[in-house]
Order: sequence, then C-alpha cells, then structure tokens
Amino acid sequence: MHNYDRIPSLASVQDAAQQISAVVVKTPLLESPALNAKLGGRLLIKAECLQRTGSFKFRGAYNTISRLSEEERQKGVFAYSSGNHAQGIAHAAQILGVAATILMPADSPKMKIENTRGYGAEVITYDRYSDSREEIGTRICDESGKILIKPYDNYYVISGQGTVGLEIVRQLAQRDISADYVLAPCGGGGLMSGLSMAIKDASPRTDLYSVEPEGFEDTMRSLALGRRVSNMPGAESFCDAIVTPTPGEITFPLLKANLKAGLAVSDAEVAHGIRTAFSAFKLVVEPGGAVAIAAILAGKLDMTDKVAVAVASGGNIDAPLYADILSEKY
Amino acid sequence: MHNYDRIPSLASVQDAAQQISAVVVKTPLLESPALNAKLGGRLLIKAECLQRTGSFKFRGAYNTISRLSEEERQKGVFAYSSGNHAQGIAHAAQILGVAATILMPADSPKMKIENTRGYGAEVITYDRYSDSREEIGTRICDESGKILIKPYDNYYVISGQGTVGLEIVRQLAQRDISADYVLAPCGGGGLMSGLSMAIKDASPRTDLYSVEPEGFEDTMRSLALGRRVSNMPGAESFCDAIVTPTPGEITFPLLKANLKAGLAVSDAEVAHGIRTAFSAFKLVVEPGGAVAIAAILAGKLDMTDKVAVAVASGGNIDAPLYADILSEKY
Repeated sequence: MHNYDRIPSLASVQDAAQQISAVVVKTPLLESPALNAKLGGRLLIKAECLQRTGSFKFRGAYNTISRLSEEERQKGVFAYSSGNHAQGIAHAAQILGVAATILMPADSPKMKIENTRGYGAEVITYDRYSDSREEIGTRICDESGKILIKPYDNYYVISGQGTVGLEIVRQLAQRDISADYVLAPCGGGGLMSGLSMAIKDASPRTDLYSVEPEGFEDTMRSLALGRRVSNMPGAESFCDAIVTPTPGEITFPLLKANLKAGLAVSDAEVAHGIRTAFSAFKLVVEPGGAVAIAAILAGKLDMTDKVAVAVASGGNIDAPLYADILSEKY
Repeated sequence: MHNYDRIPSLASVQDAAQQISAVVVKTPLLESPALNAKLGGRLLIKAECLQRTGSFKFRGAYNTISRLSEEERQKGVFAYSSGNHAQGIAHAAQILGVAATILMPADSPKMKIENTRGYGAEVITYDRYSDSREEIGTRICDESGKILIKPYDNYYVISGQGTVGLEIVRQLAQRDISADYVLAPCGGGGLMSGLSMAIKDASPRTDLYSVEPEGFEDTMRSLALGRRVSNMPGAESFCDAIVTPTPGEITFPLLKANLKAGLAVSDAEVAHGIRTAFSAFKLVVEPGGAVAIAAILAGKLDMTDKVAVAVASGGNIDAPLYADILSEKY
C-alpha cells in the first residue's frame, strides 16, 4: 500500500520524470516575436494542451497508476474530477490495463465526459451544487475497495505534474534563457506546487505566480494570509478546470514556500488570452488553461525587458464555446 | 550571386537543417489514441502550424536569406505569396536585418497581411484575378535590384522545407515507428519535394502522397500523366495557401521520382479535418494546412493497421472563418 500523503520533493519529481518519460509528450515552449514586441518583453508558452488527453494531468495520473501493485491494479482506480484529471486517469489506466471509475459533475464540458468514456472509464455524474464528491467517492471506495487517486493531494500526482517544471528548466537552459517569472494556472495546486520545486531549484531568482479566475482566488488570498482559506460562495467563472474551493493540504505548504504571490484574472481577460493563443500560437487552450497567459496579457506583471513563462495547461473546450470566444461574445 | 535553379538533394536538405537549426521550432509529432482507435490505424500529425510565423515556410525563407552576401542583403529581398511564404520571408528578413517587399493578393486572409506587415515588411497588394504576380514581381526586381525569392522553385527554399522530413524521420526513429504513408499539403510542391528526399532516403518502403483541394489537383493529375499540367479554370476552394496553378519546374521532377500518387479533398472534408485537429490535437490548422489530415479522415487511404504521418503545414486562419468551421457552417 502506497502512502499518498508524503511530502513531494525535487527528488520525487525527478523520479516521476524517469517513470513517465516513455509515454508523455515533451511539449514545446513556444514564443511569438510579434507578441513579444507588443509586450516589451518575452513570453514563452509551455504548451501542455498538446499533452496526451489534452492536459498536463496525464503526467500525474500515469506516475501514480504505474506504481500500483498487481493486487491494487486488480481492484481498479477511482477519481473525482471536473474533467482533465478524469481523462488523465482514464487514459493512464487504459494503457496500464486497470479499470477506472470516474465521478464527474453533470455539467462538465461535454468533450471531457465523452473523452473520459472514450478512454474506457466508467463515468458517474453528480450535481456539484448539491452533492459532495468527497462523500460519494469515499462511499464508492469503501464499498468496492477501489484505489482513490485524488486530483492534487497525492504524492505521486504532484510529483508527476512537477515534471512540467523540469522540462521548462531544460528548455530554458537549451536556449540560454533565464526566466524572471513563471506562471501557471492553479486549482488545488498540484501543477503549481510540483513545478515550483523544479523551477526554484534551478533558478532561485525566478518569481513564481499562481493564477486563478476572479472569485476563485483562494490560493492568492491564502498566500497573502499565510493560511488556507476558502472562496466566498456565489462566484461564477467559465474556467471549469480550476474552480476549486481551497488550496490542498499537501500542496499549500509547497506553494507558500516557493511562490511570490497569487494573481487573479476575469473571464474577459481569459477570453482575450484564448484568442491570443489562437492567433499568435495556433494553440487551442481552454479557459482554465489560459489564465496564466491572460495574466501576462492583462498586464498583471511588469513585462518591460522581462522573460515570463506561462503554462497553457489544457485545451479541452467544447467547440460552441470556443467559437463564441473567437467571435468576442466573451 | 546564388544559383537558385540548382536541383536540391538530400545533402542540400541536410545542409539546410544545419543552417536553420538555431532558429526553427522542432515541431512535435502528435497522436491521439482515441482517434487511432476510430481509424483502426495510427495517425501522427507533424505540427508545423507551431513553427515560427505559423507555417513551415519560415524554414525555406531563413535558409535562403541567411546565405545572401552582404551586397545582396543591402539590396533587400522580394517575394510574392498568398501569405505564408510572405510571413516566412518577412520574419527571416527581419531577424537578419534585411529589407523585405512582399506582393500579396488583395483578398489574402487579413491575418496573413497584418502579420507580414507586423514583421516589418513592405506589403503591396494585387488583384489575383486580373494581374500577373510574376510580371509585377519581375518589374519591381528589375527596377530595384531586389533579390526575388520564389515560393517554391528555389534550391534553398525547397531544401529548407525538406528539413520537416528530416525531423519526421528522427522522431519516428526515436519511437521505433516505421511509417506506411507520409502525406503533406501541396501547392507548388516545395514542402512535398523537399521532405520526399528525406523520407525516401530513410525509408524506401514508405509511400508518399501530395494532397490538394478538389479543383486544384494539378499535382495529382501531373503525377498521373507524368508531365506538368495546369488546373481547369473556375474552381474555388477556401484552401488559400495551396491553390497554385501547376507544379513547379524544379519541384515536379522530385515529386515524380519520389511520390506514389496525389490525392484531392473537398472543402467539406477539409473542414472536418480542421475540427478534428481542434478536438483531438488542440491545434489551430488553416484550410490549406489541413488537407493531409483531411485525406486520412476521409478514408482516401486504407488505414487498417497502417501508420500514417500527415503534415499540418500552417495555422494562419482568420477567427471568423475558424468560428464558422467549428460551427459546422462548412
């Protein structure tokens, strides 16, 4: 039995990189000289929307499931997720021949539900306004013996997501670039906490920022207060992938140790980020995946003669919403 | 003075790879297990829409301009292009400090004209239904002494585009994959002829196919007849990047030597290809860049247990048209 509550470290991230090396896409770090000229600095996009399953979540999922014992594999895995962790788990389980059951909000993007089923997982939906996914999940796992793989508070999941940071470090070094800022979308903080260890080890001078949708800036406020706080009720955002209520128990101490601060962006700023990813980078980025790009474009940090890396963490967006965003309906 | 009419070779493609190595994006080779399952075979996408300037054309442009003598650089470069060669030339010239003048159809996609100007080039437009770009171009070059860089019939341009093929060969070898088919969009044949030398050298068993829009399948018919023929007048297609009248003088003998045949796809099939690139690969691909993907999806080749590589050659598409395609108006 694995202990998923251990504290990840640079060593566990490096170990994850070994573990998943043969199956993940080493996603490119892209830039647009024309956009750089407008910004007065240099923006590099880590294109994790090109990762298998369309988001970075496949990294942590494969790192976790590939370490299960034969006995655990027989039991199958269980996850709750708004959609990207779901697809990551479903696809990693499929590759490794493990049964997967996924609990998803009934109003998840259609593409995310269909793809998760497409990877062979059993999908159960719930009403995210009235039901508790943790309660439903605990009951299912207690009854079935399935292995619960949480979306962020899990040693192997965080370590797997952190491999994005190792790739950024290597890609910057290859081009002899030193980054002033690294920004990533932040829900529960799995990606941000994992990559923060890799970036800070290689470049202590680089300032790290989590980015969240306005109204869901729990990480920003938690970092400012030095303790985990939750979002106010009633907020709305189309950034479905990262509207989590509070930073994770395991992720928050790492965020607190490594981040400069949190940033928040409006849906209108995110829509502009998605349109720029379309026109300048030819990348399809979903709302939750575009918040870091959006923060740079919205001028949340001074870019004059600076170098920023923004992670585009996912691209799973339904076509009608994407068409509306391109048509400036947002 | 360079002789641009020489016949390119594997050696000139390898030399181009050296010449442009530091400035080009090594674009990823992507696949979607879910789509593969539907196809009953394996489709790999060479994502050249992620190249600098949003298309492979930057490769040939940089390979050519970077070899100009100091005296030639002073004179500046001139090109005619529907938009992607224009952007490639403009950006390569900008990097190398050379003045560029570009002749473009007045009805080119807005993004292509704006981006070309954005890279600092002087843009002149013409009416592609009534004016001859070759005549206008010859007059401008005769009067100004500018160096004409043709979009495909140029030794260094073809050699530069061929580096896409060298990357495909290396990426397949890294994953221990042997391709049954390699397909690429084909206008004048610069990309197709260049990459055909790299692919055929590494894997003589691989069958190569050019893909064109229906009504502009001059390469398909020329290959079938063994001599260069032109398109019938009156055809229309939204694949603006590859609606050339006839295969090139330098490119055609290479195509004839290396290709199995030509394929053609309808605009509706291309639109489906663009939507699949969106949903399965998170790539923004323009019509002319999506014809090779479209040919596979439309079943033009038997994919049962086969491996196909399709080049997605560009992503410069205006947002309103893209939104219409996602909304299935095409």
